[in-house]
Formats: sequence, structure tokens, C-alpha cells
Amino acid sequence: MQFKVEAVCRDTNARAGVLSLPNGDVDTPVFMPVGTNATVKTLLPSDIEELGYSLILSNTYHLYLRPGEDVITRAQGLHSFMSFKGNILTDSGGFQVYSLARFRKMHDDGVEFRSHIDGSLHYFTPEKVVNIQKTLGSQIMMPLDECTAAGVGYETAKQAEERTYQWAVRSKEEFDRRCDPDKQSIFAIIQGNMFRDLRKISLERLADLDFPGYAIGGLSVGEHKDDMYGILSQIAPNMPSSKPRYLMGVGEPVDLLNAVEHGIDMFDCVLPTRNARNASVFTLNGIISLRNERFKSDFSPIDETCGCTACKKFSLSYMRHLFKTKEILGLILATKHNLYFLKRLMDGARDAVKNGAFTDFKKKFIAKYKK
Amino acid sequence: MQFKVEAVCRDTNARAGVLSLPNGDVDTPVFMPVGTNATVKTLLPSDIEELGYSLILSNTYHLYLRPGEDVITRAQGLHSFMSFKGNILTDSGGFQVYSLARFRKMHDDGVEFRSHIDGSLHYFTPEKVVNIQKTLGSQIMMPLDECTAAGVGYETAKQAEERTYQWAVRSKEEFDRRCDPDKQSIFAIIQGNMFRDLRKISLERLADLDFPGYAIGGLSVGEHKDDMYGILSQIAPNMPSSKPRYLMGVGEPVDLLNAVEHGIDMFDCVLPTRNARNASVFTLNGIISLRNERFKSDFSPIDETCGCTACKKFSLSYMRHLFKTKEILGLILATKHNLYFLKRLMDGARDAVKNGAFTDFKKKFIAKYKK
Repeated sequence: MQFKVEAVCRDTNARAGVLSLPNGDVDTPVFMPVGTNATVKTLLPSDIEELGYSLILSNTYHLYLRPGEDVITRAQGLHSFMSFKGNILTDSGGFQVYSLARFRKMHDDGVEFRSHIDGSLHYFTPEKVVNIQKTLGSQIMMPLDECTAAGVGYETAKQAEERTYQWAVRSKEEFDRRCDPDKQSIFAIIQGNMFRDLRKISLERLADLDFPGYAIGGLSVGEHKDDMYGILSQIAPNMPSSKPRYLMGVGEPVDLLNAVEHGIDMFDCVLPTRNARNASVFTLNGIISLRNERFKSDFSPIDETCGCTACKKFSLSYMRHLFKTKEILGLILATKHNLYFLKRLMDGARDAVKNGAFTDFKKKFIAKYKK
Repeated sequence: MQFKVEAVCRDTNARAGVLSLPNGDVDTPVFMPVGTNATVKTLLPSDIEELGYSLILSNTYHLYLRPGEDVITRAQGLHSFMSFKGNILTDSGGFQVYSLARFRKMHDDGVEFRSHIDGSLHYFTPEKVVNIQKTLGSQIMMPLDECTAAGVGYETAKQAEERTYQWAVRSKEEFDRRCDPDKQSIFAIIQGNMFRDLRKISLERLADLDFPGYAIGGLSVGEHKDDMYGILSQIAPNMPSSKPRYLMGVGEPVDLLNAVEHGIDMFDCVLPTRNARNASVFTLNGIISLRNERFKSDFSPIDETCGCTACKKFSLSYMRHLFKTKEILGLILATKHNLYFLKRLMDGARDAVKNGAFTDFKKKFIAKYKK
């Protein structure tokens, strides 16, 4: 993996770069669509490629439970299993164990949890999670971390930060022992909840370990936006500048631009795909619901300026009809639209950084979007 | 509309033809995918075209209820509304009023029914149904008919046959008054339940009205297969030979070949698309369920000889995974597969008729499929 910063904004920390991964180059800033169960919901791999996405996220936790490591091993990895030729980043499962599992018990050695599907008992260690991701064959893997809810006390957050650090050390050691750095890379995850000193410690000692990329975890977990932006403005600009910076779990358009402004290069979130399935789509004038009565006889597209399949071929009236009749095509088209929208937004931000016009780009987008 | 019979089988009534419709030629025998709510479930119009289908079916009953005539009028017709360039046949609603409506009351003038969606009260007359289909702009429309359940008494069946005939007369008159025969055509529907004399009367007096095409309705409604084949063998060969012959609501592969053998040219059924969404897919060796445990680590495709997207790109193991995790991509891929399968079956039957080998083609297919 190589990362090259091509341009940095004059008056902010926004940057444009290229992340060179084994399955192709990725322009940054980049949003990664989420393919939890080895499929970006409602889309074919060819759809993902057509949308211009050459890097998606998938989930170790989900794939470990279904179809299971044995099936993925026999399939010769995740790419072959799901027939996707691009790059894949796999999340470690730390966040899913925190957010989904029926039960979790943290130990210094690892985490015990019950599957949200059948209640079966499992145990993740940092080493095990590296090895599952070796089997998956993702281009970028994440180390097991401990995520804490917004609102936990200082001591709980401190313990999680400490554990996340120790697990990062062990993950890197296991990676170095077992994985081929020409094929896979491992990022570090900064934790520390909303406590600035913990975030600072987390960043500093992980930076010393010289990971090829750094992520901010544990944001967008229910905290106030001000808290998120506070941590972001403190941490992002101080993350190693020659390495890609990844903000996990953020996908709301305004949040994306604010994070880019602070120097973030990579994002993932279920928001665009999940919202799409709830008939909620992005437009330059903000989010609209395709179920709205006012679209009943509106034969214009979702967005006149959008080049996605939904906007090129179908009207708001038809989209509304599909959602009212619970037709799957509605989910497909709305998903394509939302992912196209975020691709265009990230491409626009990138161009703006390169042209020295990011601040203006962001201001204009937000003024229209929030009007 | 023009119909040309290109070849007839030497030892059966099977035939190959071309149905020339305003939006393109259609080779027969042809299976029509069902697009109930102005969408063939899970597919884009471009997918339908790629599968080789240039004629689909849609439903007057459903479109009349949602989005409603006013929306379709403003959309300038169904093709424009759903962005489909091929040909559309619309069913009259007679069958849906029979099978779906919460309540129906037959009158000589028309049928009163309550919507299955919201219970609202509606009234269809033959004239009204022609005019709705004029608004829809379907290339082939069907007249309002009265469908009866398998097992009704002779008098009920006789009354329905009589009403269906009277409504056909009125439908044709309304069509001649109001519709442009260069743009739309109307077929007749033969009823008569399982009573051979009623079927014979229905066929004979509808044939006298010189419709451009003829359909057999009221089969595949719960009767024994023997009853269906009995009516089919009696009626199909005696339907006007220069006109297309359409068997409504049949889509099971063996039934299709048996009906082709009796001289049927056109079919529609929800079976391939509905079954697909239940993980049930056609193979040359019969139907399989993609949820089956034995496919867990089977990395071969559904059918090695199939050229559909599912079979070219994805394994049984992956398909099973998609259905086990309730992923929409599974529904999409299985739908594509089943429709590809029926297209290939109909194309094979057509080629066989033209090559004088239909009987052999049918025998070999069934021997393998039913093994």
C-alpha cells in the first residue's frame, strides 16, 4: 500500500491524495460503501464498479458468523466469494461486538460475545481477528479495538483506550508474523471516547507504532455533533500526515465535508445505503423522502444535475410509486442514487482541494443543503 | 400487430412464429415476465432487455389502484412511467378481481369490487377497462372477463362464459370506437371452466368476432393437471391458426412445453419471479432450493450451462449465503436466472420446431428435468 498526498488546502487541513492498493488506485477523500454480508445491499459488484467505487468495506464480525471462515477459505477469499475485483477494507468486529452482540464480556486477552443471530458463544482475540482477515484477504484490515458508548466515565474510557492500544500492538505483531504486506495492510484505531487527553494519548502512542494508516473509532456513536467535531478538530490534523486518515462510521454529507476540512481522507457508513432503503435520498437541497405525497405526479428526477441510473431514467413519481408498492426496484435505484451522490461529493471535494477552492466548495454545498 | 407462423411441427401442433408489435418483433413461442406494479420485481428495464425479453405483462387492476389512471395519464403512459421501451401486454383485471379483491359482485354490466389494498369500492365495466388500457398504452390489451374457480357447477360456469362473451363484444366495440389499431390490439379470452362444451362454445363464438389474438383464461386456477391438459388439447389446436394463441397464467417449464405442443404461442406467469424470491430456481435437472445446506461449500454455479449473470459470476455457496442472510442481491440474481432459463427454454422450443425436432427436444428436456 502506498499513499501520496497530492494537494493540501491553503486555509484548512483538507487534502487530496491517492491510495495505491493491490486492486487499484483510490482517489481520496473517499467514501467506502458498506458491504456487511459480502454484498453492498441491493447492488451487484458491477454496479459498485459503475458507480466508480474501487474500495468498499465489509465486516469481519458478520462474515465470521455467516458464511464462516471455512466457507471463505474454500472460496479462496472474500473477493472470489462475492465476485468483486476492487479493494476491500474489513472492519475488525470490535464495533459490531459493541453494537450488535447479545452479550459481550471484555477481557484483557480478548472479547467474549454471543452472536446476534443465534446466541452462540464466540471469542475474539486480536490475533484471531488478524487471521480471519488474512483469510478474508482484504486489502486493508483493522485491529480489534474496544469501543465505548458516548457518556461512559473517564475510567471506563481509559481502560478501553489502554486495551485498544495493547491489542493494536498484538495485532501488528501478528500481522508481521503472518501476513504479506504486499497484499494486505493493517491500520490502527484511535479510541479515547470524548476525553481529549485520552484521545491524545491514544493517537501519540499508536503513531509511535508506525502503522501504514490511522483511523478514528468510537465517534458517531450517539454523542452530540459538537463533541464529535471537537474530537475531530483536535485529533485529525495531528494524525500522521503521510498516512491515510480514516474516520469510521461517518457518512452524513455535511459531516463528511467537515471531516475532510480537518484532514480526513477515508470514510465508511451504512447511512447512504440504509437511508435509501427507507426511501430517504440525498439532493443538493437536502434529504427528501420518496414516499412524499407531493411527488405523486412529479415527473422530474430526484436531482436534475445527477447522472445516476435513477435520475437518468426515472421520475420522482415512479420512485414514489415503487416505495408505495414496496417494490425492490425502489431500493435498488435509491441506493444507486445515494452512493452516486456521495461519490460526486467526494470527487467535488477532491477537485476543490486541488484547485485551492475547498472552503468555498464546502460553504456553497452546505448553504444549499441546509437551506 | 402482425403475426406470422414460420414453422409448424410435423407430428404435433407446436409452432414457431413472429409477433410484430409496435415496439419490436417478438419470437414465439414466448414467455412474458410479469411486471405487476410497472416493474418486473427486482429488475431494471435494462435487465429485462438484456435477458432478451421484448414483451412483458403488466396488470390493469394493480395500476388502476396504484399509481392510478391520473398519474399514468400525466406520465404519458406506462412505458414512459416505468421507462421500458419494449412491448407490454396488460391483463384486464378480470383475474385479479377474482383472485385478489376482498369482495366482488358480478353484474351483467360489470363487476363491483373492493381493493385488496385499502378496501375502497370500485366498478369495472368492459368499456372502462378498455379505456384504462388505452391510457396505459399497452401494445396488447385484454378484455374484462369472468374467471371461475375449479370446481364450480355447470350453471355458474355457463353464466361466466356467457358474460365473458358479452363483455368481449362490448370490449371490441369500445376498442374500435376509441383505440388506434396501429398502436394497440385487443385479444379475446376463452372461458368455460373445465366443461368441454362450454369451452367449445366460448372458442367458437369468440372466433367469429375476429379478434387479432386469442387467449385461454381460467386455467391454472387450482384444477388437476389432467383437467388443464384435457382442456388444452381440446381447445388450443382449434384456436384460429393464423392468430397468436396465449395461455394465461402458466409458467412451469413442463407445462410450457406441453402447451407449446398443443399449439400455444404465448405465456405469462409469476412463477419464475415469485419462486426466485423464495430461493427456488430452475435447473435442467429440476428445481432446487438455494437455501439447501448441501450448497454451503459448493462453488459451482446453479447451472454450468447457463449464461445468466448469476451463473457466470456467482457460486451456489454465495447464492445460499445471500438467501441465508436475507440479502436482496439473492432475489435479484435468482430472478435473472429463472427468467434466463425460461427464455432459453422457449428459444430452444422455437429452434426445435423450426428444425423439425420439437418432440425430441421436449422428451429430452422432460426426461432430465423430472428425473
